[in-house]
Amino acid sequence: MIPRMSTQGTHDRRQFLQSTLAGIGTAAIPMPVSADDYIEPSMTTPGRPFTAYGMPSGFEHVQRLLSPPGPWPVTGVSFTPIESLEGIITPSGLHFERHHNGVADIDPKLHRLMIHGLVKTPLEFSMDALLRYPRVSAIHFVECAGNSGANAGPEPMQGSAGAIHGLVSCSEWSGVPLGRLLDEAGVLPEGQWILAEGADAASMSRSIPLAEAHEQAILALYQNGERLRPEQGYPLRLLMPGWEGNLNVKWLHRVKVTAGPTMTKDETSKYTQSLKNGRALQFNLILPVKSVITRPSGTMTMNGPGYYEISGIAWSGHGKIEQVEVSMDGGHSWSRTELVAPVLPQCLTRFRLPWEWDGTPAVLQSRATDERGNVQPTRTAWKAPFSEVQFYHYNAIQSWRVSADNSVKNVYV
Amino acid sequence: MIPRMSTQGTHDRRQFLQSTLAGIGTAAIPMPVSADDYIEPSMTTPGRPFTAYGMPSGFEHVQRLLSPPGPWPVTGVSFTPIESLEGIITPSGLHFERHHNGVADIDPKLHRLMIHGLVKTPLEFSMDALLRYPRVSAIHFVECAGNSGANAGPEPMQGSAGAIHGLVSCSEWSGVPLGRLLDEAGVLPEGQWILAEGADAASMSRSIPLAEAHEQAILALYQNGERLRPEQGYPLRLLMPGWEGNLNVKWLHRVKVTAGPTMTKDETSKYTQSLKNGRALQFNLILPVKSVITRPSGTMTMNGPGYYEISGIAWSGHGKIEQVEVSMDGGHSWSRTELVAPVLPQCLTRFRLPWEWDGTPAVLQSRATDERGNVQPTRTAWKAPFSEVQFYHYNAIQSWRVSADNSVKNVYV
Repeated sequence: MIPRMSTQGTHDRRQFLQSTLAGIGTAAIPMPVSADDYIEPSMTTPGRPFTAYGMPSGFEHVQRLLSPPGPWPVTGVSFTPIESLEGIITPSGLHFERHHNGVADIDPKLHRLMIHGLVKTPLEFSMDALLRYPRVSAIHFVECAGNSGANAGPEPMQGSAGAIHGLVSCSEWSGVPLGRLLDEAGVLPEGQWILAEGADAASMSRSIPLAEAHEQAILALYQNGERLRPEQGYPLRLLMPGWEGNLNVKWLHRVKVTAGPTMTKDETSKYTQSLKNGRALQFNLILPVKSVITRPSGTMTMNGPGYYEISGIAWSGHGKIEQVEVSMDGGHSWSRTELVAPVLPQCLTRFRLPWEWDGTPAVLQSRATDERGNVQPTRTAWKAPFSEVQFYHYNAIQSWRVSADNSVKNVYV
Repeated sequence: MIPRMSTQGTHDRRQFLQSTLAGIGTAAIPMPVSADDYIEPSMTTPGRPFTAYGMPSGFEHVQRLLSPPGPWPVTGVSFTPIESLEGIITPSGLHFERHHNGVADIDPKLHRLMIHGLVKTPLEFSMDALLRYPRVSAIHFVECAGNSGANAGPEPMQGSAGAIHGLVSCSEWSGVPLGRLLDEAGVLPEGQWILAEGADAASMSRSIPLAEAHEQAILALYQNGERLRPEQGYPLRLLMPGWEGNLNVKWLHRVKVTAGPTMTKDETSKYTQSLKNGRALQFNLILPVKSVITRPSGTMTMNGPGYYEISGIAWSGHGKIEQVEVSMDGGHSWSRTELVAPVLPQCLTRFRLPWEWDGTPAVLQSRATDERGNVQPTRTAWKAPFSEVQFYHYNAIQSWRVSADNSVKNVYV
């Protein structure tokens, strides 16, 4: 069964496709030989043996962009090449990363999770013990709080959609609800926050309000069906769906119940949002609604006038995506797009819209609205309350300028 | 947001979990040292550098089972280790395979898709041309028609859930609706079937009724976000959601519109279902409703009496899964399980049920019902119409015997 288009705009979209099929058809050419007799080289020799664990084709070169570029980065980021991906699932090998002191390589037999602090009974769990608990599964995005921050800078960076917005990825996560273990330990009345600490060489640690952690946090053991990848915190990470990326503490080894936030290095020296008035927002933890057109997008080359499918991803820490509108004229007029089912909370949502490009300059924008009514702001509106150096939680509308020379560039409009 | 339990049985399930938490808690032990001061080895030395494309942890050894075991199989199958996976997404590196003459390694620049036969205008598409068409995305299972066939044999094979039922996997697929290209070519009135042929060295080819192919088939270019893996037909495969696995022709290079089925080697010498009366069902192509408990399952060892989560996967070629019931007493009594959202058509559905095992022998079974009302039969009922050698489309209820010695075995009951 092929997914249906959303009810909104279906009629118009079908009409449009009818009218533009001729345009695409120029890409299809009549066949030169009898199709029945046509033999490709791969049909004449047995293929290669099959293997116990597969990898992408050698003809594909879709990889994460490393920053800094290496050769041996242990502190930095790697960006998911969102401009080269389709649908909503990010293959685990291409999930973005933000590392503070390298990838911990942990033997699960030696790893422990401790629940301690303001609890009746401190507890320690082996991974084998955790694997016996009831599990939940859900598809959720994870996004770095600094994602898209390049666009907060004074000049638009010229790069791919992934280089600007690729610190977001989406996986099916499975694990144990944290609330169950907190209940087992017995949180004392004065316990109002938790501290989550990773067993990496940066001891990455963040504070989270207890109520939300109890309700929403998953102790993730599996990603896209298999056990977590090392870069994603094997053997255990915290997952707070829709909250700042580094709250989803990787290589999780302890959860301490505390009376207030611990004020760790990772939530004081970084990951706060400085305001124009000299103060800063701290513990503003839920990621705002955002979208980006991934096709066409920065550094791509158009193929001349004709039919294109505009496509991209939208997400919100506050719930489901309600709609994504696209403008081809820099925000003067907007069209609703098709949202590809299933549309899930705190999950990437793929949107699509057909476009007949006449070859003249155009500015493509997407504007997402979530189920709570949050709408992406313009860049100007987004920057208004903040200091010049603040770039966290950047969620303004992205503008791609498509020019008559077929170039696609990041612009501020 | 953590997925909620289904409405059915929620109350009972919560009560049950309350009563058994003490049992699980035996796995959690009080901590020997101060948790604040506890340092794991990975916290004292910078981790390894990060990479452009990730792989599973070296501590994990979850791989596909190859049959025959090699060293250089080009004809055979590889099984997805479903007993080691969670959720519904199969990582692309572990997707099952059925190869007839090895893995074709195709340069996408040289590959073409031809649409020909009973059409007004035969067409030929480069992969670049196909990539310009409007796309659809959806999460669907693919299952070999021979999956689970071992259980049609006279004696229950002792093996893992994956070794018996692992010729099923589930991915997010994205690509171009075949119907659009058929419309562009213009199907002639006498065109009632299609022939789909792969560019592998077996020229794997199958016939599909035109109406359903036009409505449902996707020319899949992407799997789980990235381009298809070679083993899954890179650069192009046909996807007929819910239909026999090898109709989803890999390395697809032509679709010929025909008046009737072509009667290829792959649909006459194989993939037909022989009946007791000496005749055979042919072109019975939609996969029946099925489920299997993956945890606990064959070859696993129980950990003595106590709490267990029973979990598994269910699917149907006819639509969504409506319910999955589980029996702990060989089919005498049944309990409804939780179905993990989202429940999607022609897609794996994860089910879960808590179980307090008292250590006495038990026979675990799961029985799925799809939205069309199809229910899994018993093995005896399934075998009734067929000849002794017929094993395709085997979808009878799987029975796992859990014994007091902690073993889990495949049994016929």
